Amino acid sequence: MSKKIGIIGAGVVGTAIGVVLYDKGYEITGVHDKKSESTKTLVDRIGCATYASPQEVSRSTDILFITTTDSAIQSVVDELADSRAFHYGQVVVHMSGAQSSEILDKARHLGARVLSLHPLQSFANLEMAIENIPGSIFSIEGDQDTYEVGIDMVEKLEGEYFFITREAKPLYHAGACVVSNYLVTLINLGIKLMESTGVPREMAVKSLLPLIRGTIRNIETAGIPDALTGPISRGDINTVMNHLACMEETGAEFINLYSCLGYYTAQVALEKGTIDMEQMIQFQDTFARMMAKLD
Amino acid sequence: MSKKIGIIGAGVVGTAIGVVLYDKGYEITGVHDKKSESTKTLVDRIGCATYASPQEVSRSTDILFITTTDSAIQSVVDELADSRAFHYGQVVVHMSGAQSSEILDKARHLGARVLSLHPLQSFANLEMAIENIPGSIFSIEGDQDTYEVGIDMVEKLEGEYFFITREAKPLYHAGACVVSNYLVTLINLGIKLMESTGVPREMAVKSLLPLIRGTIRNIETAGIPDALTGPISRGDINTVMNHLACMEETGAEFINLYSCLGYYTAQVALEKGTIDMEQMIQFQDTFARMMAKLD
Repeated sequence: MSKKIGIIGAGVVGTAIGVVLYDKGYEITGVHDKKSESTKTLVDRIGCATYASPQEVSRSTDILFITTTDSAIQSVVDELADSRAFHYGQVVVHMSGAQSSEILDKARHLGARVLSLHPLQSFANLEMAIENIPGSIFSIEGDQDTYEVGIDMVEKLEGEYFFITREAKPLYHAGACVVSNYLVTLINLGIKLMESTGVPREMAVKSLLPLIRGTIRNIETAGIPDALTGPISRGDINTVMNHLACMEETGAEFINLYSCLGYYTAQVALEKGTIDMEQMIQFQDTFARMMAKLD
Repeated sequence: MSKKIGIIGAGVVGTAIGVVLYDKGYEITGVHDKKSESTKTLVDRIGCATYASPQEVSRSTDILFITTTDSAIQSVVDELADSRAFHYGQVVVHMSGAQSSEILDKARHLGARVLSLHPLQSFANLEMAIENIPGSIFSIEGDQDTYEVGIDMVEKLEGEYFFITREAKPLYHAGACVVSNYLVTLINLGIKLMESTGVPREMAVKSLLPLIRGTIRNIETAGIPDALTGPISRGDINTVMNHLACMEETGAEFINLYSCLGYYTAQVALEKGTIDMEQMIQFQDTFARMMAKLD
């Protein structure tokens, strides 16, 4: 616990991790951000020092968090490596979901060990990040002999963790993007279908949210595939054909995404066992035909 | 309020609507289900009569709910019409999302008026239905001079409502299916991507749920397109190409759905204004190329 932590990059994630680790008793020695005003929140809340350069932060700490934007991490590492600002025994951490610890490898050449520590959370703003990081589930990836550093932090934050390999990071990140970013696209489709019938957008959003939350509760309690309900689940192809016929008339722009999702929903229904292989193929043929028509 | 309500079909929805309307002071005279044991819950909870035939229910009530499965509604209506069991001034209601009030039209020929009253909710079981129907948002569709019957019920249940036309019902229902049924498929894709990296399924589900809930909170507060985050939103095509390259190696079965959703996510990012038209086209070309490869 006597280890000193430094932070380069005081955006939402960098500021939040500084605040929550400080609250759990870690010593945060200093912070640097290329925009000096960005460090103000962290300095005000935990009373750490502001350093004028990333090198100063790195040289003064045992554990270095590089919490810049994903695309800037590599250049920060390059700059620190060029000025030999990493040191033996230091642990260098980033919190990117997309990047593996590989982009920290130049620090390894100078004797440091590397870690990527990623909380599966969405951070709309700083206060939500400070509230949500504790108790989160983290993935830990990097040098095995430094796992303990990550585990100690996660445990102090009363979170949970699992390990993944470097090679696994992109698919892991793709999974997170699907349920977060693509979820926006899915709900957008639902809202637009409702809007196309004349329901005001605000009412469409408001009326769909309880349905969405209910479905997530079902997934949590019943699991997948059991949580699947609706026409595909019960083999009701007429309802699906009716949806598609109406889209052909007044919502052709919805057909492709609706059909693509339907195609894979038929697989889930088969897994659930409420339709048989023949029915699945009938659904998938219907959806494939609709998509082919658009080509 | 002196109007008598009868219910044909005592599954989850029929039983739940009986219970919640009774709790709000409506008089439920009787219930029929082709499986006589199904009416037990309703009889026990609200003390109404069980009728041996649908005709008896219909003849004894001012407001008739036909809450069988969607596919059985039409045959119940046919049977009642054949025996002239509808009567002038009666209001006949179903609660299907997929069907319009059109399937009740034979009741109209005998002087009844028709209504489809649909709560936008997912009912995993009876207790959740009883808990969730009050306060729900309902769509009302049918004979305009009988809207008041639906409005009165919704208002007593402290819910909200909007009107839609007969023709709109399929697209409205498609919208609800997208955010509910297809949501299961979307989350299934995210879980499977995580699992493909070696994360145990249970941990994958558990770790993705906070991310999903956080995204829904973002949609609720920031709206769409602003709630979109992630690589497509910030024009980070390298991360997306990296996802796809890894899928080509170890998860080819994910490429099509991932790419199709990505294609439409690029549109949302353009709407958000964080990528320009050229970037959107670059994303969409990439995704379209990946999907074409699979054909």
